[in-house]
Amino acid sequence: MIVLFTDFGLAGPYTGQMKAALARDAAGVPVIDLFADAPSRDPRAASYLLAAYAAWFPAGTVFLAVVDPGVGGARAALAALIDGRWFVGPDNGLFEIALRRAAAAQVWEIAWRPETLSASFHGRDLFAPVAALIARGEAPSWTRRDAASARRPLWPDDLAAIVYVDHYGNAITGLRASVLPAGARLQTGGRAIPRARTFSDAAPGEALWYENANGLAEIAVNLGHADAALGLAVGSPVTVAA
Amino acid sequence: MIVLFTDFGLAGPYTGQMKAALARDAAGVPVIDLFADAPSRDPRAASYLLAAYAAWFPAGTVFLAVVDPGVGGARAALAALIDGRWFVGPDNGLFEIALRRAAAAQVWEIAWRPETLSASFHGRDLFAPVAALIARGEAPSWTRRDAASARRPLWPDDLAAIVYVDHYGNAITGLRASVLPAGARLQTGGRAIPRARTFSDAAPGEALWYENANGLAEIAVNLGHADAALGLAVGSPVTVAA
Amino acid sequence: MIVLFTDFGLAGPYTGQMKAALARDAAGVPVIDLFADAPSRDPRAASYLLAAYAAWFPAGTVFLAVVDPGVGGARAALAALIDGRWFVGPDNGLFEIALRRAAAAQVWEIAWRPETLSASFHGRDLFAPVAALIARGEAPSWTRRDAASARRPLWPDDLAAIVYVDHYGNAITGLRASVLPAGARLQTGGRAIPRARTFSDAAPGEALWYENANGLAEIAVNLGHADAALGLAVGSPVTVAA
Repeated sequence: MIVLFTDFGLAGPYTGQMKAALARDAAGVPVIDLFADAPSRDPRAASYLLAAYAAWFPAGTVFLAVVDPGVGGARAALAALIDGRWFVGPDNGLFEIALRRAAAAQVWEIAWRPETLSASFHGRDLFAPVAALIARGEAPSWTRRDAASARRPLWPDDLAAIVYVDHYGNAITGLRASVLPAGARLQTGGRAIPRARTFSDAAPGEALWYENANGLAEIAVNLGHADAALGLAVGSPVTVAA
Repeated sequence: MIVLFTDFGLAGPYTGQMKAALARDAAGVPVIDLFADAPSRDPRAASYLLAAYAAWFPAGTVFLAVVDPGVGGARAALAALIDGRWFVGPDNGLFEIALRRAAAAQVWEIAWRPETLSASFHGRDLFAPVAALIARGEAPSWTRRDAASARRPLWPDDLAAIVYVDHYGNAITGLRASVLPAGARLQTGGRAIPRARTFSDAAPGEALWYENANGLAEIAVNLGHADAALGLAVGSPVTVAA
Repeated sequence: MIVLFTDFGLAGPYTGQMKAALARDAAGVPVIDLFADAPSRDPRAASYLLAAYAAWFPAGTVFLAVVDPGVGGARAALAALIDGRWFVGPDNGLFEIALRRAAAAQVWEIAWRPETLSASFHGRDLFAPVAALIARGEAPSWTRRDAASARRPLWPDDLAAIVYVDHYGNAITGLRASVLPAGARLQTGGRAIPRARTFSDAAPGEALWYENANGLAEIAVNLGHADAALGLAVGSPVTVAA
């Protein structure tokens, strides 16, 4: 299975053209849209989201991950095998948090280039063909890299900020619920928000945070919209209070 | 074929994770996105939309229908076989209108639970695996229920309100065109709107209502935007005038 | 492969129902979403976008193209074979620019009609079944037309206007980069914008235009949003300056 994780947006021709390239190069392999609206042009925030959501997928999954503001510039193209899952995308830190949490990881720099490589759409021209090859069990022309050279050691283990706001106005943080103290409140938007198990454990209109289905702390308002009620957007800081 | 009907929103990881679960459990079965933006957290309004749109699909279709504000709480999980089509989702009235219009219906309460069940995402963890099983012709662990116990007898046969607004600003009502008197006008937004066969039968900029391709009365402005012109949104009331 | 090009919007049941019709009539044929938000109700602007993006796809691709404000009215239904690619959709100029740039083209008027044809959704009821038939190598009931009768000779060869704005705020013009003079600037939003190879060749916050991955001149602001910065929307005029 190939899973798409991009900041291309839901609209526009980008995801469709990547899928056409995948259908051409890896016919019959299922392709799943995970995020088309990862934090825009922000590989750091996107890295926390990707690591948390990738962990749900089985070994063998190939993540085609493109949050790539430097496309067409000097940054390298990477493939990584992290605890049995493959990641293909730009060398800009996007895989940092998955690498950091890995028991085992290998990293390659992709040497292969297509006959025609656009300056602005490596997702279609470079990363999709490589992901297709890997999904078929083959390898592109590449060279092994020391995994450390792809790392961003200064980034924190968890990100105390909003990394995604969904359709309901729920705000996903870059904090794993498992690292937060029992009884911790999350402070953001001028409020200290208590933990609950699920939406309906809070009164209608009341704010809560809970461990979401992918292990991240997520802020919601039961039957309301946390983003509007608390003024939250991607990048809003969050503080952990006892 | 498995058809998705949810209020998850177009953005975000929810539909993708459900599809990954379906690809895992029912490989090769086509999956169709019907609505990802059914009336948000409103199983009643969604029920009129689902019944009208499900009727176009052939017998054997499995509707994975999740408008589920009570997720993680006490509500049961249901499967229903209604005139040859399967429905899987929460016991909150979402299937009421399909049941009411049925010639034949059977209802089961789903007893099966996955090893790991998140508190907030039963679409991925519970309903998708059950829909996959049914699509493969198998049955989960379940118990037969009296269909009447899943019903909402106080809801009207048709809903005199807007249940969906599309990209063109067209406003779909919960009223079947077939139950409206010949020559009926629809009153909403301070206007009495006449019936037409299709958009171009009204002058540019003129409001009309017509029987849409799924049998519902739908309000439009030819080459315009009915939602903006008439102030319509999901929930706006509509009155039938002779 | 069947490629969808419509102005149906991302939301709503239209694309899903078309895909269900395709799954019914051409099971196993890959279906790709290219644009669901082509210029709304504007076959002329959409024609420049379709011609540029279709050219990337291989021979044999079937484009199911529906920008059809006259649906249910008198306009004919067409199929066209243009340089080895198929196009199915309304006779309203949507295929004009692909036809104009063709080395070889044949056009048919579709005579086939389904048993039940809605007045407002020919995408599902008429065009999708015909596209499915063609993708399977078969032909609907149709009659050959002189290609000239489907043409719009007064439309320009390139359109000096914005035809699409994407998720990043990048604004795609209807101008092929290959027809613009070397060193040309694009004037729009009160600014004369210079050419660059890719985003990162401009300073952060600086406007550039570049040849996009499908050959069109596209206006962007590096790490910014050209639509907001320059006041651009679909239809905004663009002037070419030396």
